[in-house]
Amino acid sequence: MSAPFESGARVRTFRTRVRYGETDRMGVVWHGNYVSYFEMGRTEFMREAGLPYSELERRGVYLVVVEVGARYRANVGYDAELVIRTAVSDVGPATVAFAYRIEDSGGRLLCEGHTRLASVTPALKPVRLPEDVAKLLRA
Amino acid sequence: MSAPFESGARVRTFRTRVRYGETDRMGVVWHGNYVSYFEMGRTEFMREAGLPYSELERRGVYLVVVEVGARYRANVGYDAELVIRTAVSDVGPATVAFAYRIEDSGGRLLCEGHTRLASVTPALKPVRLPEDVAKLLRA
Amino acid sequence: MSAPFESGARVRTFRTRVRYGETDRMGVVWHGNYVSYFEMGRTEFMREAGLPYSELERRGVYLVVVEVGARYRANVGYDAELVIRTAVSDVGPATVAFAYRIEDSGGRLLCEGHTRLASVTPALKPVRLPEDVAKLLRA
Amino acid sequence: MSAPFESGARVRTFRTRVRYGETDRMGVVWHGNYVSYFEMGRTEFMREAGLPYSELERRGVYLVVVEVGARYRANVGYDAELVIRTAVSDVGPATVAFAYRIEDSGGRLLCEGHTRLASVTPALKPVRLPEDVAKLLRA
Repeated sequence: MSAPFESGARVRTFRTRVRYGETDRMGVVWHGNYVSYFEMGRTEFMREAGLPYSELERRGVYLVVVEVGARYRANVGYDAELVIRTAVSDVGPATVAFAYRIEDSGGRLLCEGHTRLASVTPALKPVRLPEDVAKLLRA
Repeated sequence: MSAPFESGARVRTFRTRVRYGETDRMGVVWHGNYVSYFEMGRTEFMREAGLPYSELERRGVYLVVVEVGARYRANVGYDAELVIRTAVSDVGPATVAFAYRIEDSGGRLLCEGHTRLASVTPALKPVRLPEDVAKLLRA
Repeated sequence: MSAPFESGARVRTFRTRVRYGETDRMGVVWHGNYVSYFEMGRTEFMREAGLPYSELERRGVYLVVVEVGARYRANVGYDAELVIRTAVSDVGPATVAFAYRIEDSGGRLLCEGHTRLASVTPALKPVRLPEDVAKLLRA
Repeated sequence: MSAPFESGARVRTFRTRVRYGETDRMGVVWHGNYVSYFEMGRTEFMREAGLPYSELERRGVYLVVVEVGARYRANVGYDAELVIRTAVSDVGPATVAFAYRIEDSGGRLLCEGHTRLASVTPALKPVRLPEDVAKLLRA
C-alpha cells in the first residue's frame, strides 16, 4: 500500500489535531475517524495541486469513493498532532486512487490507507475525468 | 425544559444503543452525540405521527434547526440502551420546537434538550408550515 | 470478500436507519459512516452469539481493529433502512476477522466490507483469544 | 449570548475548514457538528492560555460538559473556512463557561453558542478548579 510513497510520486502533507470527540473509550482515536482524515488529506492535496475539489464539483464532476482500505499500525490519543501524507497512486479514464500515510508528529506510523474514487455526474452517472484534471492528478 | 413532559403533550419513545465510536476517552458518550440522538427522536416522532420527515422534504418543506440546547444529568457508556422521549413543545406559523428527555433503560435521566426548527424552502427561504403539518404537530 | 456469505458461515442480521447527519451534500450516506455500521453489525453479532462485546472488555480482552476494507456498490439516502449482515470469516490465535454485507430493505447491495481485529489487554498488549471466545466465534 | 465578545473579555481565534463528511443532504454543515467546532475552539483557547486541556487531565482534573446551547444564524458548505472565536464567560468554584462565535472567512456570523463545564475527578466526582487554573481562565 505504501508504493506511491517510495516511488517518487508527489506527496503532499497536511496537519491536524485529534479532537476529543474523535477518541473512544480505549483512550485513542476511534478507527473509523481515519476515513475522515484521509478525506482531509485528499482535499488539501487537490487544493495544493491547483484544483480544489469544490471547484471540480462546480464543473459538474463528482468523485465518489468506491473503495476504502486502512491498516492500523499504532494508536494515538486526544490532541495529538497528525501528519497526513497523501499521494496519487493511480489515475484511470474515470477513476483515481489515493494513498495515505498518517503519522504522529514524531514520525511514528499510525495508519496506512487508500481510497479509489470514480468520477460521476451530479446524478451519479459515470463520466470520464476531464483531461486537465487527469493531467494534474498524474503530475 | 421538561414542561411538555409534564403537561400531557404527546410523547413518543425510541430506543437505540450507544455505539463504540460514540464514546470518548472518558469512557462515556461524547456529549455532542446527543444532538444526533435528538434528531433520531424527532425523526421517529414524525414517522409515528404519520408524517415521515423525508416525505415533508419531498413536498418541498425543509425543517432547519435554528436552536439547540442540552443539559447533561448523568453519563452512560458503550452499548447502553438509550430511551429517547420526544414531544412537541411549541408550533408557530413557520417554526416548531421539540423537547427531549433521554434516559437509560433503568429510567435514569441522562440528558434533557430542545431544538427549534424553522420551515424553509429547498433554497432555504422561510415558508409557513403547511396547515396539515402544523395540525399534526399540534395533535 | 463475500466468501463467508456463500460458505454456510453463520450470518447475523441487524437493521438500522440512516440518520440525517450521516448523509453528505451528495444526498447519500457519507462513505465513512459505513465503518460505524460495520461496528454495529459486529456488536449485535457478538451479543446474539451470547458474548456481548462489553462483557469481553470486562474480562480484560479488547478487540482492536487492525484492518478495515469497504467496497461501495450503490448509494442510499436519509431514513433508508439498512440491513447489516455480519459473519465471522477467520479466527486466529489472537485475531478475528468479520465480513459485512449492507443492503437496503429491498435487498440491493450497498456495501461489502471486512475488518480484522486483534485481541489485546487493556494496556493494548497482544493476548490470545480466550478458548471459549474463539470457540463461540468459530461456531 | 454574545456578552463576552462585547465586554472586553479575552477572545481567541482558531480556523478550520468544513470537511465533506460534515455536510448533510441540504448541502450545508450538519448542525450537530458545531458542538465539535466549539470543542476545537475551547481546546485551542486553553492551549494559548498556557494550559493545554490534555495537561489538565494529566493533573487529574477533567472538565465535563454539563450544558450546551447553540443558535444558528447562517449556513455554510463544504470546504468553507470557519473562524471560531472563543471566550470565557464565567468562572465558578467548580465550573467554567465558554462562549463561541463562529463566522465564515468573510465575517458572516454562522453560529453563536456556549458550553458550561464542571470540573470533576477521573471518577467523575465534582472537584474545585485548581486556583492557578481558575486564575488563567479569568485572565
